[in-house]
Amino acid sequence: MNKYELQVMQWLKDNRARAARFLQILVRENSTRENESSTQAIVIEKCRQLGLLLDIWEIDEAELRSHPAYCCDRKGFEGNPNLVAVLKGSGDGRSIILNGHIDVVPVGDSSSWNHDPFSGLIECGKLYGRGATDMKGGNVALLMAIESIIANGIKLKGDVIFQSVIEEESGGAGTLAAVLRGYKADGAIIPEPTNMKIFPKQQGSMWFRVTVTGKAAHGGTRYEGVSAIEKSLLVINKLQQLEKVRNARITDPLFKKIPIPIPINIGKISSGEWPSSVPDTAIIEGRMGVSPEETIKSAQLEMESCLEELSNQEEWFRKYPLKLEWFGGRWQPGSINSDHPLMNELIKSFEVVKGDGPVIEASPWGTDGGILSTVGNTPVVVFGPGITETAHDANEHIILEDMFAASEIIALTLLKWCEIDK
Amino acid sequence: MNKYELQVMQWLKDNRARAARFLQILVRENSTRENESSTQAIVIEKCRQLGLLLDIWEIDEAELRSHPAYCCDRKGFEGNPNLVAVLKGSGDGRSIILNGHIDVVPVGDSSSWNHDPFSGLIECGKLYGRGATDMKGGNVALLMAIESIIANGIKLKGDVIFQSVIEEESGGAGTLAAVLRGYKADGAIIPEPTNMKIFPKQQGSMWFRVTVTGKAAHGGTRYEGVSAIEKSLLVINKLQQLEKVRNARITDPLFKKIPIPIPINIGKISSGEWPSSVPDTAIIEGRMGVSPEETIKSAQLEMESCLEELSNQEEWFRKYPLKLEWFGGRWQPGSINSDHPLMNELIKSFEVVKGDGPVIEASPWGTDGGILSTVGNTPVVVFGPGITETAHDANEHIILEDMFAASEIIALTLLKWCEIDK
Repeated sequence: MNKYELQVMQWLKDNRARAARFLQILVRENSTRENESSTQAIVIEKCRQLGLLLDIWEIDEAELRSHPAYCCDRKGFEGNPNLVAVLKGSGDGRSIILNGHIDVVPVGDSSSWNHDPFSGLIECGKLYGRGATDMKGGNVALLMAIESIIANGIKLKGDVIFQSVIEEESGGAGTLAAVLRGYKADGAIIPEPTNMKIFPKQQGSMWFRVTVTGKAAHGGTRYEGVSAIEKSLLVINKLQQLEKVRNARITDPLFKKIPIPIPINIGKISSGEWPSSVPDTAIIEGRMGVSPEETIKSAQLEMESCLEELSNQEEWFRKYPLKLEWFGGRWQPGSINSDHPLMNELIKSFEVVKGDGPVIEASPWGTDGGILSTVGNTPVVVFGPGITETAHDANEHIILEDMFAASEIIALTLLKWCEIDK
Repeated sequence: MNKYELQVMQWLKDNRARAARFLQILVRENSTRENESSTQAIVIEKCRQLGLLLDIWEIDEAELRSHPAYCCDRKGFEGNPNLVAVLKGSGDGRSIILNGHIDVVPVGDSSSWNHDPFSGLIECGKLYGRGATDMKGGNVALLMAIESIIANGIKLKGDVIFQSVIEEESGGAGTLAAVLRGYKADGAIIPEPTNMKIFPKQQGSMWFRVTVTGKAAHGGTRYEGVSAIEKSLLVINKLQQLEKVRNARITDPLFKKIPIPIPINIGKISSGEWPSSVPDTAIIEGRMGVSPEETIKSAQLEMESCLEELSNQEEWFRKYPLKLEWFGGRWQPGSINSDHPLMNELIKSFEVVKGDGPVIEASPWGTDGGILSTVGNTPVVVFGPGITETAHDANEHIILEDMFAASEIIALTLLKWCEIDK
């Protein structure tokens, strides 16, 4: 390590307590959807103190509405701004976007939590609370990495573009707005909770709904009706087959440890209103994984033609067609080569900090990286300190040691990627 | 036909317009659950005018609660009485119960009705409205039959016990209360909507609920969870097999035209709250048919051991047991021999009136006949003028000609069964 790297590493070690305390402050603010402003205000103040160039704006739905990657049912964005804060480089260096979302998912059943979901409680090296892992811990790692460079008076050649966006959990409108506002870079890191794994590829995903029609009848003469539940079994069965076919095609070694790289998850079924009636409608809702090698559109077409095939096999469906809708969330897949220069820098930095190589895999879920890479043409690596398993769950928490290590790895990567202007 | 029979037949033909008008009055009163009183008042006044011995009482839930055939979630019975009205015989004749329920099922989606659901509209010989077929038309047939005997000054030896009961649609508490009050007889006719078929046997039925446990996970890593929907498919499959096994045992020729004599209807399934989560609970609700040759209890035991068998086959269910509940409605099966004397009289009367023999079958649904026969030890035949297919449906209606014919058939049967005291 050169002296700059040593300075940065030392500074980050000296400021661990401050980093933990900052995460605690962020976690104690509830930033569920449409309530992002108070947390965003804390991040803005932090960036102002760091002397970054601030761009704070409210998303204009009218501008985004017609974009094919826009997927959002939010009524309004007033009062809950997006933030981009830039550490300008001196020029001639590679730029980087450091992207984190500030929104968190709802608490769920609060009785499942051992403590207040917004406690920020620290116990045995873990910090608890909604958002600790997904992904305020990652955001703190980013901000501490930036601060370590500024605090040590280091100048970089390339721009560091920090983004604190809203709406990631509901389809990515915040990052899309930042891309359409013009923010692109030579690379990007998104510290989503990857358990410190490095994900050069991210699975995309989208929600679907299949409506199955039956024919009502009294349960005592059920043979006079056609059960929408029984017909739904054919649909579920067909979707299970489709999942097998689609996954058999995945040969990328990054997926080799993942039992089902791009799952088709049947998340909901609802049919019938009365135990002794034959149900005439069933609604199936689920999530379809999209591989980094395909597009949202091509995956949609594949499911559409799969259900068309079923309709051709089943006379009932020819008369009463299945209805397939794409609704709600949609996350673009993302991908860069495993030997992309940003990957190399990140892996080397990881080895320096951890003394061992990272696990490199494909992510089982989508992130804003999909939009950044497919719409913003910015190569994205997803790597962060949060614990995948506790995201969206009760008693969400992060291991602080991992957050500290992630900030060191990211800081070293910035020094190499953006290059020090000596 | 003897002169009494001729008198009765002629009187019924002369009074068809009055019969239709009386049904119209009854249909125009909404007698859905807990609103039976106004319709019951009209029936009571009719019976008073006929000079019948009236027994009007409110059901005492405390008295019925512990009875094994009691199945009711109604809060109270105040203000909505049961009615038994007796035409006393001179003695030494066979008594008969004429049982009809006054409650009707809810209107459902009123936009599906072409007219006001309580219009009582008469068009092309059909009378429309909720309850026209199920079973106020049957009740009118009973009352006209009784009136035809009284109006012609005919005395019977056996008692005619007319019952206008509440709660049939919700499990039979009204008829159970009448039985426990002491009303039994040598035979009974229940004019439920049979399309003029004669049902010496009635399928019983009951509702069940199976709760299936899974394990939640994110849809992107669905292999880390266990889908309650996928596990439900095993349960549905097993119940379909059970239905096959149970129906293969039915050899009674009365069932030979019925594709599935005792169906197991899966009426509802509900699982999952989020498209991209693996659902951890599924709830299946349905209706199990009970053959006249078995008891409610033995059918329950059969389903219980079937699901136990599934639990033994599936490791998951050994760890996370299926939960089976018997809830909501329960209707006892009923049965008399096809050559029972009441059957003979009814068939002969049918042939006289219709000039042809009746269709004799087993009913695909339960009636209060189950309670009357199993608890009240009263042999029951179900036979009535309503249209099975329109019961519980929008635009429910009855063919008035059938109602007139049914009252003639029942009147002739009363003369034979209870015997004329000349």
